[in-house]
Amino acid sequence: MPLLGQDFSGSLRRRITILGPGLIGGSLALALQRSSLDCDIAVWARREEGAREARPFLEGCLVTDQLAEAFENCDIAVLCMSPHAIESSGPLLQEYIPTQAVITDAGSVKEKIVQSLEASFGNRFVGAHPMAGSDASGIQAARAGLFDGAICIITPTENSHPSALRLVRELWSAAGCSLREMNPAQHDRAIARVSHLPHAAAAALVRSAACDTPAILELAGSGYRDSTRIAGGPSKMWAEILLDNRSEVGNGIRDLQNQLEMLKIALESGDRNAVEAFLADARELRINHPLTK
Amino acid sequence: MPLLGQDFSGSLRRRITILGPGLIGGSLALALQRSSLDCDIAVWARREEGAREARPFLEGCLVTDQLAEAFENCDIAVLCMSPHAIESSGPLLQEYIPTQAVITDAGSVKEKIVQSLEASFGNRFVGAHPMAGSDASGIQAARAGLFDGAICIITPTENSHPSALRLVRELWSAAGCSLREMNPAQHDRAIARVSHLPHAAAAALVRSAACDTPAILELAGSGYRDSTRIAGGPSKMWAEILLDNRSEVGNGIRDLQNQLEMLKIALESGDRNAVEAFLADARELRINHPLTK
Repeated sequence: MPLLGQDFSGSLRRRITILGPGLIGGSLALALQRSSLDCDIAVWARREEGAREARPFLEGCLVTDQLAEAFENCDIAVLCMSPHAIESSGPLLQEYIPTQAVITDAGSVKEKIVQSLEASFGNRFVGAHPMAGSDASGIQAARAGLFDGAICIITPTENSHPSALRLVRELWSAAGCSLREMNPAQHDRAIARVSHLPHAAAAALVRSAACDTPAILELAGSGYRDSTRIAGGPSKMWAEILLDNRSEVGNGIRDLQNQLEMLKIALESGDRNAVEAFLADARELRINHPLTK
Repeated sequence: MPLLGQDFSGSLRRRITILGPGLIGGSLALALQRSSLDCDIAVWARREEGAREARPFLEGCLVTDQLAEAFENCDIAVLCMSPHAIESSGPLLQEYIPTQAVITDAGSVKEKIVQSLEASFGNRFVGAHPMAGSDASGIQAARAGLFDGAICIITPTENSHPSALRLVRELWSAAGCSLREMNPAQHDRAIARVSHLPHAAAAALVRSAACDTPAILELAGSGYRDSTRIAGGPSKMWAEILLDNRSEVGNGIRDLQNQLEMLKIALESGDRNAVEAFLADARELRINHPLTK
């Protein structure tokens, strides 16, 4: 494995292959072109028309629907398809990805992906989740600055080769990300709580607010508006995300139900101290939130 | 009852007495001064220091802590204290409010207040809920434009005297509000869904997101931030509001728990269609929301 153990500071020019020219894959190609990395970039699209559509946005990249062409001399492969497609891609890609190449991905749910791709690629795969962009989508929305300052969670395991991990860190860092590391299970649990659960709660809240008289929404103010904003996001994509992380999302929903039960009981029994303590704890957690300071 | 049956378009100069010089009461005084109503305004504060503090903000108003002075020649009394204080104020105020005066209020929960104040004032009381401002508070935050374009829900009952209702409509309309009417129970149910339930949900969501590892909040993005914003509001005030409307808030929480249960079951059974339909319905309700069009 000649390339494992080397890094981008070496003198070799690298070939980076990005799979999936959507918002994330396209932005990654543009971000890496802009970076100080000495690299060639190939972008693979599943269908010929996808490649044709992406080409004008990715000047200077080889854009192709041929796996063999995309992976020629590949040093690092970055899987930027949907989490589902990433998870099942190992057996097919194994035939094409050079045996010394390092593999990473951009999927938003990690445990299943890491298990599946470690089975195909062993210590050469290190998962990642760049937390950028989800409202817009497609190559049209891609931009070099998408990852600037965004957190990217890298999810190595005890199997990960240290050199593969180093390369993956350098790649996402060069794209503009601020790096964090945790194991795949920790990642899925944390993201269930701060991203997937809020989405589930917002959707459930809209449905229970409007359940029998949608006309009352005319009375809604900024509280309702903000707390349900994300329920307006694309349903198909979110269904896939919630299902991919369903065990942790299920745990989160159970905790949320329990919290609501606590509050309901305190209200029913008219326990002023308990209601106030419940809200005061939430308020403290909310206003001490690092992002809102 | 000489004044019932007349309205502001008559030639008499009215005396309006506002109880409670907080954000709502203070803003109402300023809004009415600015309006075309021919009126004198008296503002009553419970404590002498409250009156002293409010006086510089309310030039041209009589500001006093003496009920007898505040209610001298009063034509309309507007109760702008906390919902709790409003609810229990009838027996005390009865001694001071002239027997021909009309009474309204600004409390955010209506059924209990209307019951209690109709018991004291009969057909002369008509409840109201101007839906304006709740983040800032106190006379310092008062401004003449607070009610401009805000919805004010007026909650007459079969007992309300038509002339009292007409006066109350004119008052809140002159303050700048856009008027709606429903009965007190409908009001409490609607507001539970669009205002109180979102607050309960946001607080419960913060607590379940952060429950065992608050540090993960560092990973939270704009979805979490928006959907939990209102959980940062004043806990004491919100505890009082939720308790005052506890029966309807309890029903709302139950519906929200049921919606979460539906989603959890769909996720657990891997039912892609059910998960997608759940999110798609919520999305449709959310993006067809009249306020966000």
